[in-house]
Amino acid sequence: MKHLLISLLLVSSAAAADDSAFTGDGKLKLPADYREWIFLSSGLDMSYSKLPNTMGHSMFDNIFVDPVSYREFLRSGTWPENTRLVMEMRGATEKGSINQQGKFQSGDPMGVEIHMKDSARFPGGWGFFAFSDTAAAQQIPTTADCYSCHQQHGAVNTTFVQFYPTLLKIATAKKTLSSNH
Amino acid sequence: MKHLLISLLLVSSAAAADDSAFTGDGKLKLPADYREWIFLSSGLDMSYSKLPNTMGHSMFDNIFVDPVSYREFLRSGTWPENTRLVMEMRGATEKGSINQQGKFQSGDPMGVEIHMKDSARFPGGWGFFAFSDTAAAQQIPTTADCYSCHQQHGAVNTTFVQFYPTLLKIATAKKTLSSNH
Repeated sequence: MKHLLISLLLVSSAAAADDSAFTGDGKLKLPADYREWIFLSSGLDMSYSKLPNTMGHSMFDNIFVDPVSYREFLRSGTWPENTRLVMEMRGATEKGSINQQGKFQSGDPMGVEIHMKDSARFPGGWGFFAFSDTAAAQQIPTTADCYSCHQQHGAVNTTFVQFYPTLLKIATAKKTLSSNH
Repeated sequence: MKHLLISLLLVSSAAAADDSAFTGDGKLKLPADYREWIFLSSGLDMSYSKLPNTMGHSMFDNIFVDPVSYREFLRSGTWPENTRLVMEMRGATEKGSINQQGKFQSGDPMGVEIHMKDSARFPGGWGFFAFSDTAAAQQIPTTADCYSCHQQHGAVNTTFVQFYPTLLKIATAKKTLSSNH
């Protein structure tokens, strides 16, 4: 019971954050507790282009979703209003501690992006936001490539569920996959 | 409030699992909800050996910890009794959907391992368990390399916190890092 109470405190603060996701001037806040949200998957140096990687560094991306929207996805196979998907980028290191091969994550985030569903607020239903050492971010203009690419290739409701193995199973079972991923 | 209630149901089932982590004949159960635990980090094809990778495939590992022990780590910088760290392995795929470079996770888990702290049950305080398509697993004998390697190189209490960026910060601040990682 003690364990349960501790966890309740955690969850109630996460849920309360939904009510004030935006600042007074319309910027999306970076959720302070997104690392405690539900992990969907991670990737390394993923690119949708055949051109050589010119970033000059190697990065992991970690994808999280708020717990309430995750729960709804399990039920319905798609995303409810106010869904927030977070992509966190971290440096990929090879040599460190006892590691000799492969890569692990190290250091502070190199960037955080959020993909949020709010049909009343965003034309097209979803907005993208990029945070870099900032507590709040303005929406990326809808002319940016991320919108058209997600629209064309997102497996579920403009999101890349094709890269999240546990959700891909759910969407397949619920028949909510788009035909164009 | 509705959101909060939904989350409470989730959390209460996770907490209740602590009371019956083992089967009647002493095997550790694979927690059904570990994918909803706290994500610590992921790596790709990590190896502590300089010998060539002879696995014949590429894998991500995802590390999760039960929420109650995570919360205690944030407070104290070390792990309480009954901590369970889960390592899930998933196949790393390069070409798939629109991905052209880098790697993403796909398919079912290729294996799951648990590192559990229970000083009354395990000599040395911690036990390792490997699950492969099984709902419960017997402890790996303490003569296995995983025990001595974690003992010698674990940054905090025989665990590889050096590879978990958010916890490494906490342990550094709390001065709970061992000197031998």
